[in-house]
Amino acid sequence: MTQRWLPAWLAAYDRSKAAQDLVAGIVVTILLVPQSLAYAMLAGLPPHVGMYASILPLVVYAVLGSSMTLSVGPVAVASLMTASAVAPLAAAGSSEYVFLSMLLALLGGVVLLLLGLLRMGFVANLLSHPVISGFVTGSAVLIALGQLKPLLGIPAKGETALELLASLLSRATELHIPTAVLGLSSVLALWASRRFLATGLRRAGLGAKSAEILAKLAPMAVVLLAIAAVVTLGLDMRAGVAVVGAIPAGLPTLSFTLPTQGQLQQLAVPAVMIALIGFVESVSVAQSLAIKRGERINPDAELRGLGAANLASAMSGGFPVTGGFARSVVNFAAGARTPLAGVIAAGFMGVVLLGLTGLFERLPLAVLAATIVVAVIGLVDLATLRHAWQYDRADAVAWLVTAMGVLGLGVEAGVGLGVAMSIGTFLWRASRPHIAVVGRIGESEHFRNERRFTVTTYPELLLMRIDESLFFANMQSVLQRIEEEIEKRGDVQHLVLDLSSVSHIDLTAVEALQRLQADLRERGIELHLAEVRGPVMDRIAQTDLPRKLAHEPFLNLHEAAGVLAPAASPQPPSLRLKPSTARSNA
Amino acid sequence: MTQRWLPAWLAAYDRSKAAQDLVAGIVVTILLVPQSLAYAMLAGLPPHVGMYASILPLVVYAVLGSSMTLSVGPVAVASLMTASAVAPLAAAGSSEYVFLSMLLALLGGVVLLLLGLLRMGFVANLLSHPVISGFVTGSAVLIALGQLKPLLGIPAKGETALELLASLLSRATELHIPTAVLGLSSVLALWASRRFLATGLRRAGLGAKSAEILAKLAPMAVVLLAIAAVVTLGLDMRAGVAVVGAIPAGLPTLSFTLPTQGQLQQLAVPAVMIALIGFVESVSVAQSLAIKRGERINPDAELRGLGAANLASAMSGGFPVTGGFARSVVNFAAGARTPLAGVIAAGFMGVVLLGLTGLFERLPLAVLAATIVVAVIGLVDLATLRHAWQYDRADAVAWLVTAMGVLGLGVEAGVGLGVAMSIGTFLWRASRPHIAVVGRIGESEHFRNERRFTVTTYPELLLMRIDESLFFANMQSVLQRIEEEIEKRGDVQHLVLDLSSVSHIDLTAVEALQRLQADLRERGIELHLAEVRGPVMDRIAQTDLPRKLAHEPFLNLHEAAGVLAPAASPQPPSLRLKPSTARSNA
Repeated sequence: MTQRWLPAWLAAYDRSKAAQDLVAGIVVTILLVPQSLAYAMLAGLPPHVGMYASILPLVVYAVLGSSMTLSVGPVAVASLMTASAVAPLAAAGSSEYVFLSMLLALLGGVVLLLLGLLRMGFVANLLSHPVISGFVTGSAVLIALGQLKPLLGIPAKGETALELLASLLSRATELHIPTAVLGLSSVLALWASRRFLATGLRRAGLGAKSAEILAKLAPMAVVLLAIAAVVTLGLDMRAGVAVVGAIPAGLPTLSFTLPTQGQLQQLAVPAVMIALIGFVESVSVAQSLAIKRGERINPDAELRGLGAANLASAMSGGFPVTGGFARSVVNFAAGARTPLAGVIAAGFMGVVLLGLTGLFERLPLAVLAATIVVAVIGLVDLATLRHAWQYDRADAVAWLVTAMGVLGLGVEAGVGLGVAMSIGTFLWRASRPHIAVVGRIGESEHFRNERRFTVTTYPELLLMRIDESLFFANMQSVLQRIEEEIEKRGDVQHLVLDLSSVSHIDLTAVEALQRLQADLRERGIELHLAEVRGPVMDRIAQTDLPRKLAHEPFLNLHEAAGVLAPAASPQPPSLRLKPSTARSNA
Repeated sequence: MTQRWLPAWLAAYDRSKAAQDLVAGIVVTILLVPQSLAYAMLAGLPPHVGMYASILPLVVYAVLGSSMTLSVGPVAVASLMTASAVAPLAAAGSSEYVFLSMLLALLGGVVLLLLGLLRMGFVANLLSHPVISGFVTGSAVLIALGQLKPLLGIPAKGETALELLASLLSRATELHIPTAVLGLSSVLALWASRRFLATGLRRAGLGAKSAEILAKLAPMAVVLLAIAAVVTLGLDMRAGVAVVGAIPAGLPTLSFTLPTQGQLQQLAVPAVMIALIGFVESVSVAQSLAIKRGERINPDAELRGLGAANLASAMSGGFPVTGGFARSVVNFAAGARTPLAGVIAAGFMGVVLLGLTGLFERLPLAVLAATIVVAVIGLVDLATLRHAWQYDRADAVAWLVTAMGVLGLGVEAGVGLGVAMSIGTFLWRASRPHIAVVGRIGESEHFRNERRFTVTTYPELLLMRIDESLFFANMQSVLQRIEEEIEKRGDVQHLVLDLSSVSHIDLTAVEALQRLQADLRERGIELHLAEVRGPVMDRIAQTDLPRKLAHEPFLNLHEAAGVLAPAASPQPPSLRLKPSTARSNA
């Protein structure tokens, strides 16, 4: 209790964890150096911005976040979204471009912090899994297509997937051969190491875990080999291979410039999108890792941790950051026990920035592009599309529309489409509620759908069960169905609505029920309610509907049938299910 | 069958209806003349555009629509929305302004026709009643504020309610006294006739219906009196009272000019909004009138009828039209039996345009403004806000946000906010589902919420009922609640989820259930399902969830308890309800 201001993991820290966190920190640093350079390039930023975004944010997240293993820093999708937001507003590489990217991190950080303080972690649930999967897959393909430019040295242009493809194809002859050779052989090396290295190392006698960790360090090896090739062969000077160029040495300084109102307006929407998408991705990575160790993720703490990390990134010359998928998995596999691993990685990144930037100046951009391409290919998730297709076409359509939206219209429109699809699918379903005419099963107290079970019904008594909350978007279709059933039967004197599945009735729907009651009474039919849930009853007690009803709401349909059709003789008892519906009730 | 191409009402037409339709047609014409001039002014258009919009659209709707009594033509809210959409793009009164207004009708008409051909009449249900009421109320206040300018002759400016108010107050001293006298006395006369005339005429011996109809003709009387005053006193020439001015005589000619792509892009969104809002208002008016006579409204036919009416308006020099509330009520009250009443009104409007336009040239704008103000005050609907406040605060908030949005940000932002509020409220509710831990009531087969009923529960058996469909936005909170209950009880070996209220499980939720099952089994707890609805069972049979379960889904909780807790001894039978929840089940 004397250490309340310390994060829980730090207060309970002991030596046994230190060695594991140190190893994980080193492993993550080795992965983080090429990634930070690559994602800065992807975002259209100078390389040192990526390194700046990989120091202070990690420390801040370690203090405020709730995941023990999440690796915060630049990630592919947020970098793509940064480029897509800033490119129309400033020239690539200009100081205004850098400033606007920082501003994105600042605004996103403020939004996440506010949501965290308001305990609104549930916003992570505003996107369905198929939509997230479709979005990430579309983004991955778009990123990979965009990286073909530096990878092959083709001066192509274009925002959308189609534009990029067309431009790449039409200018394919301008391919720069030394660049393409370096790029493609890097892709090959990275892909092979990813695919075969761990197995190979295991066969060579290494432990499974060490083999896996070592294999993950392949990107750094490829980077160092490529630098060696450039230096020895002079590929940049003599063959015109594009390289990273000078990286200013030294740590970032804290600074803050006030943006103009115009800049704030232009970046507000993309900043919120980058922050929220990053948050959703990050929480799902953190949760899947936490489950494996029986740890817990607190979404509100994640909002605060990622929000503060983005503020820290903005103030130390970085750009939007979040928890990365591949890097967190490596951190976890390398044995990270606490966020101290991240702090250690940040320390090593500082060391690199202080003394080793010169090493990366002659790193070919094609190799960075290769790193990105191989990383994002792992994000392509067709399995979810397949599952969705089998399980529910509407979810598959949501996946496809979102992915196509990202590819054809860009990332922001893709997110918008995805959210619209998520919500639209849900509303569409809720607006076509399942409604069953029910009857008594044999002599039991149970009532079931007359279409699926052999049940007793009563000519003067219409029993209907509505399987959805009643609200503005579905009340019309409910009324229409009731009307159809009444007309079909002709003889109805009592309509009983079983509201056992209705957990809410909004004002529009309760007004419609009041009109229905008055309308039916004029036609000599009484409306009754049964199995009204407590919260619904509390609500409709505020209206005059209960007073207008001929009988107070029935506890259940058994009671309703007993009161309203006492003379009706049940059919011979039979709990026989109709074919193909065994074990299900509807 | 030989007359299939005729509307049903025309095929079945007989003389007895003709006299009633003729009277209604005349009455509507007398109301329509000042309204068409006034709403054209409200939309920022020359007066004859309003008259053009009151001829061909009525005829087309008569053929294609489904309401017997709806009066189609210019209405207040659509006129305000037209002004708000076109004013930023063209100078008021310019030929481009007129063209863009026609374009709004054209685009809206195409959208409605398409929706009608696709049988998507259900879009009328995308707005909840509180949101529509808040929107109409906010628009009415905004319209009334805007009309204070011509009413008082104050040269005020402003888009939003606040700007208008500030401008009106700051320039109040520039008030034009003769205009203000004319305007305010017209308002007084119209208000008094609305309030007292029908009663007065009844007391004077007229039948209730004739009195009501005669009272509705007061606007025309005020108009004619005002013209007489202007002509005799020369108020326009000598005192500078603004009047309608020259109205070109003659019928509109059919014409069509191709718009540019830029114009289409700028007007697409407002056109869709005007068309949909108009459709929603119109259908609700048509339905409330149809119910009174046992007639039926077909929303798809309404889409086609209003869509074609807007196309007709666009091609004959008009602007967006829809079914008007006040005018339809008058048409109904005047005895209209079929849409022929509308055709007759269109004919009389043609006569006015051919020979009587000169009469209205010296009509003061202040009187038109008075007509509008008195008409829209009737649209203010605080009753719905009051009901919503009593019934459900969320609905009241939706009303207030929509109305404030219209007043503070304008009509389009208001609609957007309203739709967002409608959907947001629904999603927010669905994302916090009601979940009950249930137990057996006495020795019955019924299971109820342990918080509301005295029930028997079993320590090793946790029975939970989820009162909402499972989907991406609420699965997290369901999992969290399950976890809390398991932790609270400690001893749980079986968790049974009663899915009787679950009518759909989306992919995100079914994946979460699969993870829950695996996770619980690792901890020694078996997951079971009960009361799975037929459509839900059909769906989850596509996944491996049913095969992974230790027992097939139970028909109901009674069966589940019998199998999983056979030895458990029930508590003494008691169907006693806990206080305050009598007659409700939860």
